Amino acid sequence: MGTAHAKGKSFLNDESFMKRALRLARKGEGWVSPNPMVGSVIVRNNRIIGEGYHRKFGQAHAEINALESVTESAEGSTIYVTLEPCSHYGKTPPCVDRLIACRPQRVVIGTADPNPLVAGKGIEALQRSGVPVSVGVLEEACRQINEAFFKFIQSRTPFVTLKYAQTLDGRIATATGHSRWISSLPSRRFAHRLRHAHDAIMVGIGTVLSDDPELTVRLVRGKNPLRIVLDSRLRIPLTSHILQDQGKAGTLLVATDRADGEKLARLRDLGIDVLILPADPSGRIVLPSLFRELGTRNIASVLVEGGSGVLTALLAEDLADRLVAIVAPKIAGKGIEAVGDLNITDMKSAIGLIFRRTYRKGDDLIIDARLRGPA
Amino acid sequence: MGTAHAKGKSFLNDESFMKRALRLARKGEGWVSPNPMVGSVIVRNNRIIGEGYHRKFGQAHAEINALESVTESAEGSTIYVTLEPCSHYGKTPPCVDRLIACRPQRVVIGTADPNPLVAGKGIEALQRSGVPVSVGVLEEACRQINEAFFKFIQSRTPFVTLKYAQTLDGRIATATGHSRWISSLPSRRFAHRLRHAHDAIMVGIGTVLSDDPELTVRLVRGKNPLRIVLDSRLRIPLTSHILQDQGKAGTLLVATDRADGEKLARLRDLGIDVLILPADPSGRIVLPSLFRELGTRNIASVLVEGGSGVLTALLAEDLADRLVAIVAPKIAGKGIEAVGDLNITDMKSAIGLIFRRTYRKGDDLIIDARLRGPA
Repeated sequence: MGTAHAKGKSFLNDESFMKRALRLARKGEGWVSPNPMVGSVIVRNNRIIGEGYHRKFGQAHAEINALESVTESAEGSTIYVTLEPCSHYGKTPPCVDRLIACRPQRVVIGTADPNPLVAGKGIEALQRSGVPVSVGVLEEACRQINEAFFKFIQSRTPFVTLKYAQTLDGRIATATGHSRWISSLPSRRFAHRLRHAHDAIMVGIGTVLSDDPELTVRLVRGKNPLRIVLDSRLRIPLTSHILQDQGKAGTLLVATDRADGEKLARLRDLGIDVLILPADPSGRIVLPSLFRELGTRNIASVLVEGGSGVLTALLAEDLADRLVAIVAPKIAGKGIEAVGDLNITDMKSAIGLIFRRTYRKGDDLIIDARLRGPA
Repeated sequence: MGTAHAKGKSFLNDESFMKRALRLARKGEGWVSPNPMVGSVIVRNNRIIGEGYHRKFGQAHAEINALESVTESAEGSTIYVTLEPCSHYGKTPPCVDRLIACRPQRVVIGTADPNPLVAGKGIEALQRSGVPVSVGVLEEACRQINEAFFKFIQSRTPFVTLKYAQTLDGRIATATGHSRWISSLPSRRFAHRLRHAHDAIMVGIGTVLSDDPELTVRLVRGKNPLRIVLDSRLRIPLTSHILQDQGKAGTLLVATDRADGEKLARLRDLGIDVLILPADPSGRIVLPSLFRELGTRNIASVLVEGGSGVLTALLAEDLADRLVAIVAPKIAGKGIEAVGDLNITDMKSAIGLIFRRTYRKGDDLIIDARLRGPA
């Protein structure tokens, strides 16, 4: 400390300990929503003496798990935490009180919390108690890991990810509808990990009618998200996998007030959750209303798996936040396209993406992009 | 030498010197065709004492340039060369004679030459003269750098690269034909480097009629390749850029025997090179005949820049070797697709690619793929 050299060294250590805290945070993926993923590391004399992460919604926060893991006193230690500690009573008592009580030398925070209930209050509480606080170590990474949570907490509507496998030429099936399999097994495993990471999966009724998918997490260990089917007129066959195996995962059918009342009654008799929303003039589900409703149900993230009609509608209405395209090393020629008509005539008006990460998975290429939002 | 350790070390050095030779070889890109790119490094006591590459078709080969660059005797040195030295009289005398004459300790060769005139004869000649030869250092890279040459020398038809810029959803223009610009300036610069690297650029007449392109290398320093227009009925306007600026780059029009004789005469009066080929039953140019004809003209590589009809025809007839897609971070929705109908109904019959290299260029993603060829 004190010299430029020592400062440089201390900064390096901050980053490496925060990296470890981030790695811990990620272990909570799929289990903590609608809470954020958080990791924490406790360090003394350059040595990790405790670590923890938020494991499951409703259970202890990361800092508390880290504090409880130490076998020596945490007094005088440096406590790393990826997200600002809470200062309010939620499902658990405020974390800042526990942090202050253990008299750390310093608390290092990845990023401030965007939650209006917390926003800066945790940092202030620490500082008021005389605990030095550093904020913004690996800030971008600490924000990105919880981008779904941040969107949800600010808008009260879920973070929407579009996901599909396409050939290089943008097709998700041949002209006759044949699509199995566009992508390789490693990519399909990756797709199941994405399911686990989201609170809900959403598909259009067309996908259920043509593929009768299970929409469960089978290729990796993980939780099954809620399965949402957009089925404005309740055309879903009672024999569908997703209605038959309610024990595996929850199902929510979304229909409009124009759906057949008798079918609705039968479905509800079978214990199926059916959400009825007003139809737009052309008889379709009003998607912003749906997302608001999902928000009230604490669905913080939705993985939209198609088909083309649903993907196109979400893009056209600017309702998507993230787009994950699995691009297979194939050319299919004329067929079913991932994205249909968007009424774009000038290339300058094309929907803008940011390719955040692009990487290989098996023979395929994964393009993990964010929507740029309206210009 | 002699011990396992020393062998390991010597192998490492071989690779790093061959890497340098490869880097030199690449400097000949665009200038040496239909010769291969070749680089050479001369090493004594782990120190480079000379290096060279094949700079221009008809001029000295890499090994000779390397030998002429040394300011001390090359006797007892190790000579690295990316491709097997020639043992025949071509435009220049055989390189092996010069190599043998300087009495090297060893010659290290990246890859044997596939040219039937050379194939192993250079290696044999060296060995017969008592020069130890190592073959196969960075062999894959030494092959890949000359893949166009290898295809040409074996088939006597050019190596065919398809190149286009597309949105993530596979569109090369909006429904109204608007396409400027899909890709970013760094990608367009890269595309001009690709032009420089090929002997000819090929487009369909539709592209000339709609865009009136120059098809020259303007964004980078390089040579202008021959411009080939597939124009079966000679619809090209006499005012087209590529007919008006013959001083900048050569132009070859390809038509069928059904083209208008008067237009043909006018074009030839203007000094335009027009190749007439028999038409297929539907009046189109028979592409394999065209490529054979280009081969006789020593066109070893062709960069096909579209439009969609030409790209689709080459894919459908399995005439492409390489595909370079510049994928822009955009979604255009319904529009003009890079690839049209290929009559593929089963996804298993999709055209297979190998994504050899995928990397970012500006905001875009470059997918540099090879065609898998028929299963």
